[in-house]
Amino acid sequence: MNVIEGGVCAAKGFSANGVHCGIRKNQTKKDLSLIFSSVPASAAAVYTTNLVKGAPLTVTKKHLSNGIAQAVICNSGNANTCNANGIEIAEEMSAIAAKALGISAEDMIVASTGVIGQPLSMEPIAAGLPELVAGLSPEGGQAAAEGIMTTDTVRKEVAVEFTLGGKTCRLGGIAKGSGMIHPNMATMLVFLTTDAAITPAMLQKALSGDIANTFNMLSIDGDTSTNDMVTVLANGLAGNPVVDAEGEDFTAFMQALNSVTIALCRKIAGDGEGATKLLECKVTGAADLTTAKTVAKSVICSSLLKAAMFGADANWGRVLCAIGYSGANVDVNKVDVAFRSAAGTVEVCKNGAGLDFSEEIAKKVLLEKEIEILVELNSGEISSTAWGCDLTYDYVKINGDYRT
Amino acid sequence: MNVIEGGVCAAKGFSANGVHCGIRKNQTKKDLSLIFSSVPASAAAVYTTNLVKGAPLTVTKKHLSNGIAQAVICNSGNANTCNANGIEIAEEMSAIAAKALGISAEDMIVASTGVIGQPLSMEPIAAGLPELVAGLSPEGGQAAAEGIMTTDTVRKEVAVEFTLGGKTCRLGGIAKGSGMIHPNMATMLVFLTTDAAITPAMLQKALSGDIANTFNMLSIDGDTSTNDMVTVLANGLAGNPVVDAEGEDFTAFMQALNSVTIALCRKIAGDGEGATKLLECKVTGAADLTTAKTVAKSVICSSLLKAAMFGADANWGRVLCAIGYSGANVDVNKVDVAFRSAAGTVEVCKNGAGLDFSEEIAKKVLLEKEIEILVELNSGEISSTAWGCDLTYDYVKINGDYRT
Repeated sequence: MNVIEGGVCAAKGFSANGVHCGIRKNQTKKDLSLIFSSVPASAAAVYTTNLVKGAPLTVTKKHLSNGIAQAVICNSGNANTCNANGIEIAEEMSAIAAKALGISAEDMIVASTGVIGQPLSMEPIAAGLPELVAGLSPEGGQAAAEGIMTTDTVRKEVAVEFTLGGKTCRLGGIAKGSGMIHPNMATMLVFLTTDAAITPAMLQKALSGDIANTFNMLSIDGDTSTNDMVTVLANGLAGNPVVDAEGEDFTAFMQALNSVTIALCRKIAGDGEGATKLLECKVTGAADLTTAKTVAKSVICSSLLKAAMFGADANWGRVLCAIGYSGANVDVNKVDVAFRSAAGTVEVCKNGAGLDFSEEIAKKVLLEKEIEILVELNSGEISSTAWGCDLTYDYVKINGDYRT
Repeated sequence: MNVIEGGVCAAKGFSANGVHCGIRKNQTKKDLSLIFSSVPASAAAVYTTNLVKGAPLTVTKKHLSNGIAQAVICNSGNANTCNANGIEIAEEMSAIAAKALGISAEDMIVASTGVIGQPLSMEPIAAGLPELVAGLSPEGGQAAAEGIMTTDTVRKEVAVEFTLGGKTCRLGGIAKGSGMIHPNMATMLVFLTTDAAITPAMLQKALSGDIANTFNMLSIDGDTSTNDMVTVLANGLAGNPVVDAEGEDFTAFMQALNSVTIALCRKIAGDGEGATKLLECKVTGAADLTTAKTVAKSVICSSLLKAAMFGADANWGRVLCAIGYSGANVDVNKVDVAFRSAAGTVEVCKNGAGLDFSEEIAKKVLLEKEIEILVELNSGEISSTAWGCDLTYDYVKINGDYRT
């Protein structure tokens, strides 16, 4: 398997585009994206567990009930959530896009992201659609990645190439962060495409299995959005024997999927709202997976630890504290903690008590942009990783004044 | 019942003091406090549920096994947690203070707050103790309140006067915030004193019942400290008939206790690390208490909402979002939301959808220092309140650089 250039257009038969249609005031920001497969594709999705759900999720869920879709339309700048006419608007977005593409509205995935509770007007969307459709091209992946951004500072694309039944397949995706992100079944917006041939059922199985250890282990701010969604379209144009059961090919597909989703997790975490650092908490030596995941998530979500990482302060007591209140059944007297980065490793805690470490070296380690927080529980063989970012002045700034 | 001046020395027979002994580098900051009852008192306490527990909690728990105590010693600047010799140090702190006071070490409550994982030296404590004990006085409550402060910007004292069996009783307390505070059984350090006569069992019952709706509904940053403790000493010097069962007197005592703990909750929340605003989320119309509390806590803990409140931005979608992911079984289509302050009330959401409100009035309401977030679930008769604060640049500043 190789990482390759590109995102949603890396796989055969996919074209995409992104334009500014006027939902966002800033005319330099794209706010409407389209992804199109030249043939109908197997489709799978996971959605937020928030009881408050964006209207587009309800519409998409209905459309995907047959496991088939052919296109994705997504706007930024407005979540179309908590609006009395939300479903109507999401259905109309699907309908006019489908009509322009010459496909059935039931084959549309529709998504929205942005402010909650402000009516979404169809006007800019209808006005922008002709340009959006006319500009669809296999080179349009970047534009599509830009059109779904909100407070993201960089667009997020990943793609890999792998082999199934002797055929070269590709799988790529785009993602939007970067606030209101917290693990729970699904998170944020991620659109994945592949030319692998795989049944809708196996595609859903692959996706649901994968996110438990990837997007569900990602937290920017502890807030689970109302509009989180991850979708994958598999159009089969690679010509591999259809993956319709577990086995070697399914495992290879899972590996390709996992490498793309982990890369997107790291991109989303590293570009969290206001973030200056990507944090990865790697828990090892757990007795079971639930313990490993619970501990990793608790550490990555601690506001105090996140602020300490911003300040490059090796305040490991906050790691112990977060392990202690996580709810996991951990023997805190066995816990070892270290911080690791490109600048080296500093061991700070052994068997639950502090080590005498060099503050100078610790500072050097923590001044890097990517920090690993290593937690060894010394109670078993199970591991888990969670992804997050530091808590900074800019997170407060961005979210103290988001709507204006 | 009347609110009166003072704190831990408001009740008869209590004296207190606070000094700088040298645990904290800043010589203008007191770091060692003592509270003393002239006679042995009924004693009750609640402790953190964090699996990582400060050594002083273990020692205090042992000392309170007979329900009797006579004094409290507490240092700031060092949590005496995750230290190999922590228990030894906490026992020695108790022993030397008890000796100086002429009481048994088993009648000491011992507490520590500050950085985790740095060895606590007995030297400054032993050196400061003579001055600390010599200065004990009924006017020393303020000094004691100052000696337990860490990042607190103001000292926190409250006292009330009430009547039990025809006798005037007093109950007062001091508290320290202001970070690593999140509801779970007990939170932060609170020391309460009263001259009411009440058995240890009824005192514990009163305290445990009270904190479920007061300190456990308080969150500054979602981090449950390793050293949280609330204690109450009742020395009986008011001369009322001993409260040894439920009934009118117990109810009156509970009311007095509740008025002090709620006032301390508000003080702790309003002085949360970096806070510029006190936030109170008042949930009404819930079908049951668990739902009401879960919703109130989830809203008050949302980083996104806290940042919006800092920016005086009426971004009510974040309230709905936090209700939706709270885990409570809520019909989100019935939820009404309003913001209220001294400047007025602005209704922003009705039946789960946005209302057309004046942004100008909303801004005026939210620029006040005390904000109520009113959530009506329209599904029953049960209410709950949670307390918190906004998320600000200064929270990040304080916690990005706490140890230096």
